[in-house]
Amino acid sequence: MAQPPSDSLAARHARVRTALGREGLDALVVFHLPNIRYLTGFAGSAAIAILAREEIVLITDGRYVTEVATHVAPGCPGLRLVKVDPTYDATLAAFLRGFDGPRVGFESAHLTVSRFDALTAALRDTASRRAGALIPAERLVEAARVCKDTAELETLRRAGVLISGVARGVLSGVRAGQREWEVAADIDDRIRRGGFERPAFDTIVASGPNGALPHARPGDRRLQPGDLVVLDFGGVYDGYCVDITRTVSVGTPGAEARRVYDAVAAAQMAAVAVVKPLAAVTDVDEAARAVLEALGFGPAFSHATGHGLGLEIHEEPRVGPRRANIPGVPPAGRDDRLEPGVVFTIEPGVYLPGFGGVRIEDDVVVTATGADWLTDVPRALLAV
Amino acid sequence: MAQPPSDSLAARHARVRTALGREGLDALVVFHLPNIRYLTGFAGSAAIAILAREEIVLITDGRYVTEVATHVAPGCPGLRLVKVDPTYDATLAAFLRGFDGPRVGFESAHLTVSRFDALTAALRDTASRRAGALIPAERLVEAARVCKDTAELETLRRAGVLISGVARGVLSGVRAGQREWEVAADIDDRIRRGGFERPAFDTIVASGPNGALPHARPGDRRLQPGDLVVLDFGGVYDGYCVDITRTVSVGTPGAEARRVYDAVAAAQMAAVAVVKPLAAVTDVDEAARAVLEALGFGPAFSHATGHGLGLEIHEEPRVGPRRANIPGVPPAGRDDRLEPGVVFTIEPGVYLPGFGGVRIEDDVVVTATGADWLTDVPRALLAV
Repeated sequence: MAQPPSDSLAARHARVRTALGREGLDALVVFHLPNIRYLTGFAGSAAIAILAREEIVLITDGRYVTEVATHVAPGCPGLRLVKVDPTYDATLAAFLRGFDGPRVGFESAHLTVSRFDALTAALRDTASRRAGALIPAERLVEAARVCKDTAELETLRRAGVLISGVARGVLSGVRAGQREWEVAADIDDRIRRGGFERPAFDTIVASGPNGALPHARPGDRRLQPGDLVVLDFGGVYDGYCVDITRTVSVGTPGAEARRVYDAVAAAQMAAVAVVKPLAAVTDVDEAARAVLEALGFGPAFSHATGHGLGLEIHEEPRVGPRRANIPGVPPAGRDDRLEPGVVFTIEPGVYLPGFGGVRIEDDVVVTATGADWLTDVPRALLAV
Repeated sequence: MAQPPSDSLAARHARVRTALGREGLDALVVFHLPNIRYLTGFAGSAAIAILAREEIVLITDGRYVTEVATHVAPGCPGLRLVKVDPTYDATLAAFLRGFDGPRVGFESAHLTVSRFDALTAALRDTASRRAGALIPAERLVEAARVCKDTAELETLRRAGVLISGVARGVLSGVRAGQREWEVAADIDDRIRRGGFERPAFDTIVASGPNGALPHARPGDRRLQPGDLVVLDFGGVYDGYCVDITRTVSVGTPGAEARRVYDAVAAAQMAAVAVVKPLAAVTDVDEAARAVLEALGFGPAFSHATGHGLGLEIHEEPRVGPRRANIPGVPPAGRDDRLEPGVVFTIEPGVYLPGFGGVRIEDDVVVTATGADWLTDVPRALLAV
């Protein structure tokens, strides 16, 4: 686990503190672990952080205090470690009672009503807490995370190279007769041996008609001639996620399979072509969607074009449609515009019940003038 | 994915409806996916359920409606499918506006403040909603899940047999010179090939001094003579989780290693010996803890003795200490008493900084008179 450089952490703190200032907050209670990792480098499974004006407090328990003291605190500017006693929320309440600043925000998208009620009750019982209520705040750290810094980009580029190597191995190994779950087990094993901590999500191997479900689970079905097979997998490398999908043909593809495949490949190329600083994320989605609509596959493209990648496998930006015209797919932020350092997937797909599906997914980073692929694996339809 | 039998689902609904009656609720909005799966069999990644007096409403999106209509609804008594339009929370708000019952509870431990605020605002804007506020409710479904029914026990017993087979393979394969992450990759591969959907959690392989961290992540360290190696892994089988740990010695174990191992093994046996209907979960923890305290390892046993297993890898009951005398380990419910069908782990451990660790973990089910092991793997200290 590489600790982020101190200057990166300082810049991240500054970015979020600017957002706090804009919201009139003296501090932010951070509950979301990827946000805590972003601000401190702490990679454990339990912690609460409080980003204040002059320091960042990290509350964690006995399992992690030694690791934090020796590996996290030295490189994290202004970090103060507080050990849990006796529970996380009691420790947080005790800290807040003594905190010298009236306007404390909290991550309302990452705290349950149940914990919030308990915390509020614990703070109400004391006269020493000068604050009024805790103030709901949203997306303050998430917004800072959208644009990756140098250290993050280095990690993501390396992860892209590694997952591309894994994908090439997977494509050379898959063959007719294997069961979906066997292929998935092979992929997961290659991910682990390929330098990743773990798969980034449950690997998808969807063959033949199963490919019509975008999130199919690998089952007992054997790959058979005439199938298109969607292979979607990713890895976590030093905390950062990459994600790739290839669709292969078992045996020589038929005319319809080629037609669908070529449409999806064209949609992906159209999307990447519009990626540049200041482009709206909705334009990237629109570019892919327009190609598929023109070829008659509009209704068969039932998900967004892509999603941000970083400490989470799905993070901002959401590269989706402008309007909420797809059931279950909320519209993307109209004002989300790309800037250099934003990393996301481009993964158009077509899903035809009874026939199957095609999805092609790669990861890109926005550069000063356009986009760089992070993943590098042949995109032509491969017959296995 | 086997769908639970209809009569099991009917009994589960009845159990939770009894709890609703006790709380004076007309319905419960269920957000937690394992709870939704328990009540309906739905195994997808997004849904909201509302358990009312006469029906159970399942809100899900376009990805899952076909699957629900054909596989879930037919076997689930009183299930009514509602398709998301345009978002989950808007669909829920629309349903609640039309709901004929004033007292609607919601799972406050599984809804964020952010979503709760948005939902409350959506309901406030209408005159047609007769209800007052949504009422926080906790542990209504979780409590029903503690005691497994026949269908669940069949699945868990089968999963126990399968993970035992995986464990025997793992123990026969591990050897000096392997890196921790290589052993972990081998374990994960065996889990997938052993009939499981996936590993139940990140596999732990902690060798030598790394074993002193109960939740160590597998690293580059090679297994070497003199090491104790903690191997902790689990699998998900038809949605249900099992969990096992063995500690092996690389080469002939030294006197201290034997002493620690024997202490932990004795603690596990002491704990299982007190398992029977009406025993308090804290007594199970106390039995293990007393053995380790008597042998001078009390402070080195820094976690709870066990946890419930089922649709989640950590669920109720929490088999922990009576008092909150371990930093970071909250006390177990004093009144939690075992009954036939409760399934949990028994996993005492000793962690000695600089030396390493020993943990032995098996899964048990409470029977009419005592306990049955679900896992069956030799417990003697194995030298590899």
